[in-house]
Amino acid sequence: MQTKALTMGSAMALLAVLAAPGFAEVNPEDAIKYRKAVMTVQAWNLGPLAAMARGEIPFDPEVAVQSARNLDATSHMLLDGFTPGSDVGQTRARPEIWDRWADFQEKAAAFESRAADLVAAADSGDAGAFRQAVGNAGSACRACHTDYRTD
Amino acid sequence: MQTKALTMGSAMALLAVLAAPGFAEVNPEDAIKYRKAVMTVQAWNLGPLAAMARGEIPFDPEVAVQSARNLDATSHMLLDGFTPGSDVGQTRARPEIWDRWADFQEKAAAFESRAADLVAAADSGDAGAFRQAVGNAGSACRACHTDYRTD
Repeated sequence: MQTKALTMGSAMALLAVLAAPGFAEVNPEDAIKYRKAVMTVQAWNLGPLAAMARGEIPFDPEVAVQSARNLDATSHMLLDGFTPGSDVGQTRARPEIWDRWADFQEKAAAFESRAADLVAAADSGDAGAFRQAVGNAGSACRACHTDYRTD
Repeated sequence: MQTKALTMGSAMALLAVLAAPGFAEVNPEDAIKYRKAVMTVQAWNLGPLAAMARGEIPFDPEVAVQSARNLDATSHMLLDGFTPGSDVGQTRARPEIWDRWADFQEKAAAFESRAADLVAAADSGDAGAFRQAVGNAGSACRACHTDYRTD
């Protein structure tokens, strides 16, 4: 138990240093795990938004706003997970991401912007604006997936 | 037994609706994947906070505030992932979570509160308050893990 606690402590300390932005040496596996986790969270939250936009489930303002906020909050986390060297491993990320980093950054920024718009649209309660904003957020997801994710 | 199962089923269906509004039927595997993803995101963001609190890396106000905000934003996502029936599968969650749901909710709420405090402490730039707030957030994590996670 003592040994386990010690090892855990050391591992956490190491992880902390590696994970901290500004430190060049991030374990690619950790970065891949992180960005996948961020996208899993985003997919879960986009689910009910898309279903409401398509009229498959009734519009619930509370769920819409909270899901949009969750998408917005996590949109800012994505880029941190695409550390240099993390194109190798259990990932569908294409190496082109790092060759065309400026374009990738731009697409990520576009998604962040669409997620913020979606919060505003969900807050407004305007059904048309909400549907449009969900569509735009989905398109921003796809823009990256089309260019930078393997099938 | 039949009656009990039926009652359990009804209660579970109701709880599922409450826990994940919009989706009456949540696939337990999806819920498990979701909550693991949320905690992966939290561990990544807690890493540099803990390292800064321990003085292992220099205090970086920008990283501290952003990481604290990420922890805060995701703290509100946890409970949604603990849908009824998701005690079975690739999970370390103990079934006691659903037997003592009120206590589990309370512990989750305490973590949300500590994460919000951490944002304020990181914002304040007060090193002592920051260290204390990181410790409190970590303790709130452990409080749940001790009682409700298998080793």
